[in-house]
Amino acid sequence: MSRQNLWTAISLFLPLVTTCILLFSSSTTASTSPLTHNENIKSSTSGRLDVLPIPTQYSTGHTVLCLSSTFEITTSFPLLPDLKDAIERTNQHLSSDRHQYLSPTRGLEFFNNNNNNNNNSNCAIHLPSLHLDLTSSSDKVKPILSYVTLPSEDRPESESYTLSVPLSGPAKLVGKTPLGLLRGLTTFEHLFYHLPTSSSSSQPTVLARPDSLSQSQQLPLGSTNSEQVVGTGSSAQTDLDGTTYAPFAPYEIEDKPAFGWRAVLLDTSRNYFSVPSILKMLDTMAMVKLNVFHWHITDSNSWPLDLSTHPELAQAGAYSPSDIYSEADIRHIIQYAGDRGIDVMLEIDTPGHTAIIAESHPELIACYQASPWQRNAHQPPPGQLRFADPAVAEFVNGLFTSTLGLVSGPYFGTGGDEINENCMLQDEQTAQALERNAWTLDDALDDFTAKTHATIRQQGKTPVVWQEMVLDHGEMPSLGKDTIVSIWVNSADARRVLDKGHRIIQAAGDYFYLDCGQGGWIGQEGGGNSWCDPFKTWMRMYSFDPYKDVSDEQKKLVLGGQASLWAEQTDETNFEQVLWPRAAAVAELFWTGAGQGSYPRSAIEALPRMHDVRYRMVDRGVNAVPLQPHWCALRPGVCVMGA
Amino acid sequence: MSRQNLWTAISLFLPLVTTCILLFSSSTTASTSPLTHNENIKSSTSGRLDVLPIPTQYSTGHTVLCLSSTFEITTSFPLLPDLKDAIERTNQHLSSDRHQYLSPTRGLEFFNNNNNNNNNSNCAIHLPSLHLDLTSSSDKVKPILSYVTLPSEDRPESESYTLSVPLSGPAKLVGKTPLGLLRGLTTFEHLFYHLPTSSSSSQPTVLARPDSLSQSQQLPLGSTNSEQVVGTGSSAQTDLDGTTYAPFAPYEIEDKPAFGWRAVLLDTSRNYFSVPSILKMLDTMAMVKLNVFHWHITDSNSWPLDLSTHPELAQAGAYSPSDIYSEADIRHIIQYAGDRGIDVMLEIDTPGHTAIIAESHPELIACYQASPWQRNAHQPPPGQLRFADPAVAEFVNGLFTSTLGLVSGPYFGTGGDEINENCMLQDEQTAQALERNAWTLDDALDDFTAKTHATIRQQGKTPVVWQEMVLDHGEMPSLGKDTIVSIWVNSADARRVLDKGHRIIQAAGDYFYLDCGQGGWIGQEGGGNSWCDPFKTWMRMYSFDPYKDVSDEQKKLVLGGQASLWAEQTDETNFEQVLWPRAAAVAELFWTGAGQGSYPRSAIEALPRMHDVRYRMVDRGVNAVPLQPHWCALRPGVCVMGA
Repeated sequence: MSRQNLWTAISLFLPLVTTCILLFSSSTTASTSPLTHNENIKSSTSGRLDVLPIPTQYSTGHTVLCLSSTFEITTSFPLLPDLKDAIERTNQHLSSDRHQYLSPTRGLEFFNNNNNNNNNSNCAIHLPSLHLDLTSSSDKVKPILSYVTLPSEDRPESESYTLSVPLSGPAKLVGKTPLGLLRGLTTFEHLFYHLPTSSSSSQPTVLARPDSLSQSQQLPLGSTNSEQVVGTGSSAQTDLDGTTYAPFAPYEIEDKPAFGWRAVLLDTSRNYFSVPSILKMLDTMAMVKLNVFHWHITDSNSWPLDLSTHPELAQAGAYSPSDIYSEADIRHIIQYAGDRGIDVMLEIDTPGHTAIIAESHPELIACYQASPWQRNAHQPPPGQLRFADPAVAEFVNGLFTSTLGLVSGPYFGTGGDEINENCMLQDEQTAQALERNAWTLDDALDDFTAKTHATIRQQGKTPVVWQEMVLDHGEMPSLGKDTIVSIWVNSADARRVLDKGHRIIQAAGDYFYLDCGQGGWIGQEGGGNSWCDPFKTWMRMYSFDPYKDVSDEQKKLVLGGQASLWAEQTDETNFEQVLWPRAAAVAELFWTGAGQGSYPRSAIEALPRMHDVRYRMVDRGVNAVPLQPHWCALRPGVCVMGA
Repeated sequence: MSRQNLWTAISLFLPLVTTCILLFSSSTTASTSPLTHNENIKSSTSGRLDVLPIPTQYSTGHTVLCLSSTFEITTSFPLLPDLKDAIERTNQHLSSDRHQYLSPTRGLEFFNNNNNNNNNSNCAIHLPSLHLDLTSSSDKVKPILSYVTLPSEDRPESESYTLSVPLSGPAKLVGKTPLGLLRGLTTFEHLFYHLPTSSSSSQPTVLARPDSLSQSQQLPLGSTNSEQVVGTGSSAQTDLDGTTYAPFAPYEIEDKPAFGWRAVLLDTSRNYFSVPSILKMLDTMAMVKLNVFHWHITDSNSWPLDLSTHPELAQAGAYSPSDIYSEADIRHIIQYAGDRGIDVMLEIDTPGHTAIIAESHPELIACYQASPWQRNAHQPPPGQLRFADPAVAEFVNGLFTSTLGLVSGPYFGTGGDEINENCMLQDEQTAQALERNAWTLDDALDDFTAKTHATIRQQGKTPVVWQEMVLDHGEMPSLGKDTIVSIWVNSADARRVLDKGHRIIQAAGDYFYLDCGQGGWIGQEGGGNSWCDPFKTWMRMYSFDPYKDVSDEQKKLVLGGQASLWAEQTDETNFEQVLWPRAAAVAELFWTGAGQGSYPRSAIEALPRMHDVRYRMVDRGVNAVPLQPHWCALRPGVCVMGA
């Protein structure tokens, strides 16, 4: 019996076996069951599950399961518009995705000499439907956004789901919340591949999906509780050009993220990114279950944030009248993100990184465009808020209050990185204020922070700061222990912040800065090097241990991690290329946890998934870059050291 | 008198002064006149000429010159279709480009308080036409391709042109050949900027170009010699939304490249690039007057070259039936390139980098997919031609003959890099052949090279090889002194090749590899680093001295330089981002020569031009990446060290 036949035989019994080995994992570390499968991956391409992030626990079989021409997604509870839209998107993806299995024959191997071919068709088994259910009736009518904006620690439970795709009968997806169902729908989509009709010598069955089914029902909120059909795979287009199939049915999946903070940071000040480009980023983030968009919306170069209370800031500080984000834009982005399981954390970086405010409020800014810039800032243009001045704190409080009015989530970023001392100490107004109050510069910063963070807390939000606020400015009694700290300078700094009792985001430049390695951008003869060289490959990112140097008691303080895109050398021309698929590695790292119980995870084991999700992204029009020559992407395990 | 007024006054006399200082430069180094202007650039933004590559000699004035609504390009000689098309493209660009001047007010500064505003319009002066002429009547009927495919040493003269854009009357462009006129047209286009109507508070004159003028005449070849109008600026669309203007008229330009080889290499084997993406690359190369496309068309990963004589190679070796270049595709690309002043040098890398041939001809290839790959190749998959076998030389000669049949230019690349000795010595058939002939491996390589290069010379072409062929395999008597050698391992290797009397291309990885710094792509835990780390910034590329360690007598052996894009981590998703605008720095380095008479050129001086051409590219739909925050691009000289 060949290995192929052995696996086919085993697959008949696998559903039973699976039921026995599936256990809920209540810790943040994954159980051992995926590793059983990882061993399979190493010995053959059979049974490979290329869902990224890889689910906490899963089993696969060895039978090709085709999507029925009448495939439908059903629910037995009334749908809010957000989940209904998510179901529509899944139907759309199942219908329009043309992603092919990554192997030399691009999936044809599943259809030729297929032992399941018992009715003169290459698709012996068809999946008729996917049924969605919730475990808790109280959750049935809350929108997804309400779970997305839970505190980070409470998110994982609401993102959990189980998915069962049997060889006969409907597939079942069960979540504790609509957010869990959203995650499960994403996983379900990624089980499937497309086999074009033309590439098959023995023409697999064409799954025609009549257009007449393409209109989904409009479901009134809170209407009947009987089974409902939300669209079908035909909602977008009829799939006349091939077969949509899952190669390794049956599937049993239990899934829950290890961390509640799985973020991408985008800096929209150094270069501007249009609203559509941000929406597209959110769609792609949702593909890999990232759940926080850290929006570094302003900085010294431009002020795209167009607040109705402070119109002068964008008027004078945006790159152009169209390079702005209106309040309506921001609300739209927050809702769009929330519908996709993503919280938007707005950051207004203060008191440094604010030079451009001088264009409308010169009285608030010290050392604006002072020369040489190197003495006054980390990069041009210099300019910082005169934070020793009470009028400045008042201005910032107004700014924060207006911005907080737009925020749905529990967090707000106030920055605090790279404050240039020389700029402040040379500033006459600041010097006078310090003298008046008998303050050191750190005293002034503490006072400014106390005032501005009070505003944030009054609005029921928790401040998020960069690491210097905790490490570089003395005691800073203003910083409540609830303040969340983003580690960025070096991953080795995490422990010192944890020792002070703060919760942290692992976002260190030595692992997670997407912009490193593009070379120095400051003009100089011969060119300079990137400050955080070399380039951080996805394998480098993936090798990070979120618990390195973290004591057992401190583990709960690690909220998760973040890939950061600072935009000195990035705008819409290379946005997606810098971001994808590398941020997907961060998504998996912080979704899946430690796998076998300890970090680091294995990049070689993850490589086929990274290829798969990259080509899925490209198929959906996302310019994710190739990680290896196409030849390697088609041959998992060949283009690795020692192979 | 303010500096501004002083310059305006000077500009009135500048045409006269210019006439006196303009001298033809017959050497490959530029004269000093540009530096006069570079000093101007440093002291103010006035008179800046942001044409890249910067012309050998030029003068600018200080008057805004708008394109007339009836602007037309005329000639007094009969046009071949290629030049006629080039003129059409220029008209199209003048009409559709929306590139704005890079300054905080985006060019509005030229229209407010304009001293030339003497007729209640912001455009006081309009350019009615551009007249093209040739200096030599014998050149008038040869196609551009015939100059593009001259030997490298003869190209600069045929690319030379003079361009005069006065304050009144028609502009004049004179070339020795139609290729020179093509270069001049490109320069002419880049003098102009767009000012949108909406961004001007005092609404500059709208240049309506009636649609009735949009159809250009079809000019019969060799028809009347009287003045001819080829289209107008209106050929694409009416410019209802703003003004097209040149800010620093009058312009006097004398231009000629320093080097005849200004190349981009693209590897289309590791990942595939579609024909349209290559055509777009050629268009962008033409924007910066690059003149050689070194097409590394095959390698070990895939064989996209679909030859009618060897259909099995692509059938078995292309990534898919559509990931190929047909003979018609290649002929089309060569003609398209030639029409844009670009020679296509095809390279079939042998005897290494040929593993994929084993898919159709396993008998020709040693160590195909041998494990571990590290012992048999620089990267997976291993596999090299059994070059000691006479049947292999015969096969390669057939391959070369077929491919040479497609080539228009004087050169053909045969590769010769990274031959893995272990692969060959472990190969039984090779071992037998060596024993049979009492050959060393180098003897066998010499014999193979003698046979295959003979084929190239029989077709009247000159072989181009990688440096190892000269440096790493003993004497290699087969390598004629006419063989051109591409330096790639390290720029320090150039001298040793020159000392052997070969002409060289400066293409070293330590300056000109576009793929460096993306991190290691071979799968390994933690990830590896790029072998040629760090990333080569445009400033690094620009700092190269083509004559470093080159004796005066050897200077004539330096044909030029090349930016190389090896495609392990690049395909169409990030093609343009990796290439542009960095390759533009290489274009200027090898077009302009040494500037003041010695290298290195100044990156700080070139920075505004690099920004300008980058934004021009983006305006034309090319995804060239930002070099700095937009804030810096608008402020030349601010974002540099020490500013």
